[in-house]
Amino acid sequence: MKLLCATLLLASTAVLADDAATLKKAQRLFKPVPASAPALKTNPTNPDKVELGKMLFFDPRLSSSWLISCNTCHNLGLGGVDLLETAVGHGWQKGPRNSPTVLNAVFNMAQFWDGRAKDLREQAMGPVQAAVEMASNPARTVKTLKSIPDYANRFRKSFPGESDAVTFENMARAIESFEATLITPNSKFDAYLAGKAVLTDIEKEGLETFMEKGCSNCHAGVNLGGQGYYPFGVVQKPGAEVLPVNDKGRFDVTRTATDEYAFKSPSLRNIELTPPYFHSGKVWDLRQAVGIMGSAQLGALLTDTEAGQIVAFLRILTGDQPRVTYPVLPAHTPETPLPDVRVPPR
Amino acid sequence: MKLLCATLLLASTAVLADDAATLKKAQRLFKPVPASAPALKTNPTNPDKVELGKMLFFDPRLSSSWLISCNTCHNLGLGGVDLLETAVGHGWQKGPRNSPTVLNAVFNMAQFWDGRAKDLREQAMGPVQAAVEMASNPARTVKTLKSIPDYANRFRKSFPGESDAVTFENMARAIESFEATLITPNSKFDAYLAGKAVLTDIEKEGLETFMEKGCSNCHAGVNLGGQGYYPFGVVQKPGAEVLPVNDKGRFDVTRTATDEYAFKSPSLRNIELTPPYFHSGKVWDLRQAVGIMGSAQLGALLTDTEAGQIVAFLRILTGDQPRVTYPVLPAHTPETPLPDVRVPPR
Repeated sequence: MKLLCATLLLASTAVLADDAATLKKAQRLFKPVPASAPALKTNPTNPDKVELGKMLFFDPRLSSSWLISCNTCHNLGLGGVDLLETAVGHGWQKGPRNSPTVLNAVFNMAQFWDGRAKDLREQAMGPVQAAVEMASNPARTVKTLKSIPDYANRFRKSFPGESDAVTFENMARAIESFEATLITPNSKFDAYLAGKAVLTDIEKEGLETFMEKGCSNCHAGVNLGGQGYYPFGVVQKPGAEVLPVNDKGRFDVTRTATDEYAFKSPSLRNIELTPPYFHSGKVWDLRQAVGIMGSAQLGALLTDTEAGQIVAFLRILTGDQPRVTYPVLPAHTPETPLPDVRVPPR
Repeated sequence: MKLLCATLLLASTAVLADDAATLKKAQRLFKPVPASAPALKTNPTNPDKVELGKMLFFDPRLSSSWLISCNTCHNLGLGGVDLLETAVGHGWQKGPRNSPTVLNAVFNMAQFWDGRAKDLREQAMGPVQAAVEMASNPARTVKTLKSIPDYANRFRKSFPGESDAVTFENMARAIESFEATLITPNSKFDAYLAGKAVLTDIEKEGLETFMEKGCSNCHAGVNLGGQGYYPFGVVQKPGAEVLPVNDKGRFDVTRTATDEYAFKSPSLRNIELTPPYFHSGKVWDLRQAVGIMGSAQLGALLTDTEAGQIVAFLRILTGDQPRVTYPVLPAHTPETPLPDVRVPPR
């Protein structure tokens, strides 16, 4: 009896030591989402700017059709995405890639799948001008914003001391200020990292598998991703269905051979909410996506059990979704360029 | 001096009597927007139902594309409309008529420009199924809602005692419950009706002109409209640009000759926020719209001064816009029908 007790005690001490080692390793690799918006180095925030940014984020009049807002493809009610294979924009045109989530995007090293925008400010200027997205342009946007007195006032308040506050860049700065608030703290994983939650067996096994198999090589930090570019199919190229040959990813930005088919590793925060997966948006099932990553990136054929564990772990990355009051937008005036839903021939 | 004073006193008493008569007449013709949502006879409300209705109102997964929600064409940030000539829906198809505002729509005698839906419940079932709007159907909608456990739970809570709570009709009932809350009290005009605000000269002249010229024959009640059908061009038909010949309005519902080109008089609440005007959405300028109404409906060519007065009056019909928290929508599941952005050949 004594012997049995001693053995059990030893075993349970071993389990505890093992648990502590896993937590310690996880704490080295990952960081929790902070409770409040991070400061932006080149874009000091203020409440007026955040509110203005929110209004702009939801205002479809930034598009030439007056139908498409930032929120159309980055729906704050749907994990910050559109849940579509690839975005659909002006004239129902299909965009080339899956819309990344705006949630926690502030923690990414750069924006877009290919990192062509260095921050959210640069990012915000892209879709407004893209012919297949909002199909507007800086001149039209500034004319629109200047024509609406309430917006002009809000720009002046948000960018004090600037003689011409209503600019395309300041529009992007305001949107960036708001987007920096779109973070999802308090996931179960973050509580675990803080020593305030205990994982279930399968969640812990998933975390361990995630770290042991090397997923965390590309998916670490606050966002479990978003910190580097990696060739999709570093070990084994997935089929053309998942990795279309005509989209060379980061290569189109850098023209460097080693960047062919490289993409920014996406954040895995709230990943269960944001299918379909990959830049092609071709995979709806999270377990299948995990399996593809295993073979393509790690050369490790994950067993069903392992894939299931990893999915269980990924599900604890879902945090509190942002709660925002839907903005009442200021009325346009006779000076505002009117909506234009026509689709120019391509 | 005494005489002058007496004259002034008499004159000012006369003005006051005149003011009192105007107010009294206005109080007979118009009613204020109440402070809280009106009760619905056949759809008893409860907080769960209103919250569910809000979620459904904002959920683009009621459309087959997952891109279009009720809020797309009835944007609560933009006076409850899309500010477009006519709606643009699935596949970027243009709808036949201008989207009426959802704000205060609960006070209309019927819904749609031709009144083909008797209430908001019936109305809500239309766009979901319309090929040029959300392009879905009841079976797909119910399958979608049943596949999302959080929605199924909310339907059960919202419709207690029903064995099969997730139905297309209950979807419409929940949306109606929410839409009944989308009212805009506290306009300056309502404060005036309550004896709590004084109109400026031009506003009062506008109100008087509005009543004297007969505008209030079709635009009275809580909504200053929405209570009857009237041939557009009862006196003089406007041009085909404003009144397209192929849209016979209420006639297509009743097949009654006298209903040819008859439309429900729209509410004038918040009218300054909801251009372009008329079922055709062809007129962006409120003063021009007032002028067209004068000649088409009243046979009264309004002077510039009169039109300006009426516009000044119409601008005090803007009330408090609804403030809503943007809903975080529940995740879909593997059973949910996936988005389909394809556009069937017509």
